[in-house]
Amino acid sequence: MQAITQKIKELTPFFEKELENYVLSLPSGPRNLYEPEKYILKLGGKRLRPLMALLSAEAMGGKKESAVYAALAVEIFHNFSLVHDDIMDSAPLRRGQATVHEKWDIPTAILCGDNMLIHSIRQLLFYPPHLSSKMINFFLSTAQGVCEGQQMDMDFENREKVLPEEYVEMIRKKTAILLGSSLSLGAMASGAKDEILNHFQAFGECLGISFQIMDDYLDTFASPDESGKIKGGDLLIGKKSMPHILADIHLKGSAAKEWNNFKNLNKEQKSKKMLDIISMLESENISFLCKEAAAGFAKRAEEALLKIQLSEEYFNFFREFSAFLLHRKY
Amino acid sequence: MQAITQKIKELTPFFEKELENYVLSLPSGPRNLYEPEKYILKLGGKRLRPLMALLSAEAMGGKKESAVYAALAVEIFHNFSLVHDDIMDSAPLRRGQATVHEKWDIPTAILCGDNMLIHSIRQLLFYPPHLSSKMINFFLSTAQGVCEGQQMDMDFENREKVLPEEYVEMIRKKTAILLGSSLSLGAMASGAKDEILNHFQAFGECLGISFQIMDDYLDTFASPDESGKIKGGDLLIGKKSMPHILADIHLKGSAAKEWNNFKNLNKEQKSKKMLDIISMLESENISFLCKEAAAGFAKRAEEALLKIQLSEEYFNFFREFSAFLLHRKY
Repeated sequence: MQAITQKIKELTPFFEKELENYVLSLPSGPRNLYEPEKYILKLGGKRLRPLMALLSAEAMGGKKESAVYAALAVEIFHNFSLVHDDIMDSAPLRRGQATVHEKWDIPTAILCGDNMLIHSIRQLLFYPPHLSSKMINFFLSTAQGVCEGQQMDMDFENREKVLPEEYVEMIRKKTAILLGSSLSLGAMASGAKDEILNHFQAFGECLGISFQIMDDYLDTFASPDESGKIKGGDLLIGKKSMPHILADIHLKGSAAKEWNNFKNLNKEQKSKKMLDIISMLESENISFLCKEAAAGFAKRAEEALLKIQLSEEYFNFFREFSAFLLHRKY
Repeated sequence: MQAITQKIKELTPFFEKELENYVLSLPSGPRNLYEPEKYILKLGGKRLRPLMALLSAEAMGGKKESAVYAALAVEIFHNFSLVHDDIMDSAPLRRGQATVHEKWDIPTAILCGDNMLIHSIRQLLFYPPHLSSKMINFFLSTAQGVCEGQQMDMDFENREKVLPEEYVEMIRKKTAILLGSSLSLGAMASGAKDEILNHFQAFGECLGISFQIMDDYLDTFASPDESGKIKGGDLLIGKKSMPHILADIHLKGSAAKEWNNFKNLNKEQKSKKMLDIISMLESENISFLCKEAAAGFAKRAEEALLKIQLSEEYFNFFREFSAFLLHRKY
């Protein structure tokens, strides 16, 4: 994992500098419109999406400089979606700091998000017309998918049962599609052909789905000493994440009864029963099935990656990048 | 005014049909994302912006069919901005019907608006790449202006004093810029040159500013029997519209004192003093100054229109269209 770590150490400060230039180029006023945008963009994060755009541009034989606007577009878009999702979820914190609607107010956060969505698309206009209209077409189709995914997520919270394939389609749209598009847009900036773009898109989406399912798995089944978090946070709030969905479908007899009883408890009661219910989910193979689902998408990601016919150097970068994302223990 | 009435009667059903086709082409699900979009687009309205796009396309020698996507873009964008503005203003009603966030909820309205903003831009991708990237560049610059105008409007409500030129800049961005851009985009669809676009833009912006100032004037000074509305609605809620701003600046001595006392009253007290304060504003020439300001922008609109060198037929259409907008009595 030496190589990718080195690469990330090269690309991250490069992107941070470009992002800083973008932030400095924003108008000074109206202050209440632009300060929140600067604030959220400077809160940090791993900058995964722009890194993926830069990496795929290089993998296709281009320079990282050619993918800067694609990288900015996906990062600004990602942050727009955080600002609006945080309002919808009434989230007080983002990256350990106050969310935009908490630090300012809801109208400011709505408008700041709208303006950021507009800014994200504007980045792609820096490419020549033929390329830019292809990229914008692609980007807006992704953006619409993200809205649909967010709506599905909200709808699922009010539904009695959600099927695993519906859940996968939701997380594909809500989060994984933008990972795929980050890779595709970077590759587009280097002139990659449509067939290659499809493989990059599939690689990014399967990687994103696998990542989300592993995230769900770890929330429920990771040892608390590894994560430092409360074990079973999703179960506590009744979130329909993958273990929940699999339990709804696969448990039979007394295990199903125990699970249904658990779901009807209040938070305090759930807290007391948490370790018992997790043990039951483990012995009933729910943890195994969840890990298997994640592994299935990781395998599909690797298959898509193989089809791109990358140089050994970049093939290894992407494999190590996947491993870095997926083989966490917490 | 026969000619423009006839023209509007021709273009309106044409556009309504295209809008209906657009609505029918929307995905069926997620229902909670697409039903609100269909709902707001079908609430009606005068469709001023798309009509302006179709008219300028024809004026430049093109067919109305060529401007359909420009017309859809501005109408969908306008409705996106209504959905989000209504949340920010906590407005319960829009065109006499429940607003989207009232009929559904705030998260649904935020997401529906985001998706509509995306859809509005997608319309412009139906033009060939060179034209579409020029139009999108122009459209996104307008869109950013609209966000800035909305922020200025919110900021002004919390400020002690607003200057008339600041107010004009706010309404230019918040509403007038989109009228100008509707004309420009329609003309672009017919291949108009940049110089012509600038004149169309100036015409639309000055018309929009004049319209808004007349709207402010009528809210305060129209005879109640003509408007059917409460006289002085803006004064009652302390809205910083043009009469308010002019009164802040121009009133001196006892008139200024009376005005400042009025501003500090509660709603009920203001209601009782309303007719007196309006009489005072009239006798102190505030009503005259307000009308003069509107007339100044109407004149600038006409000057810009003259520069476009239109055929007599289309010059008259636009003149009559302006008169139709500006010479209302209520």
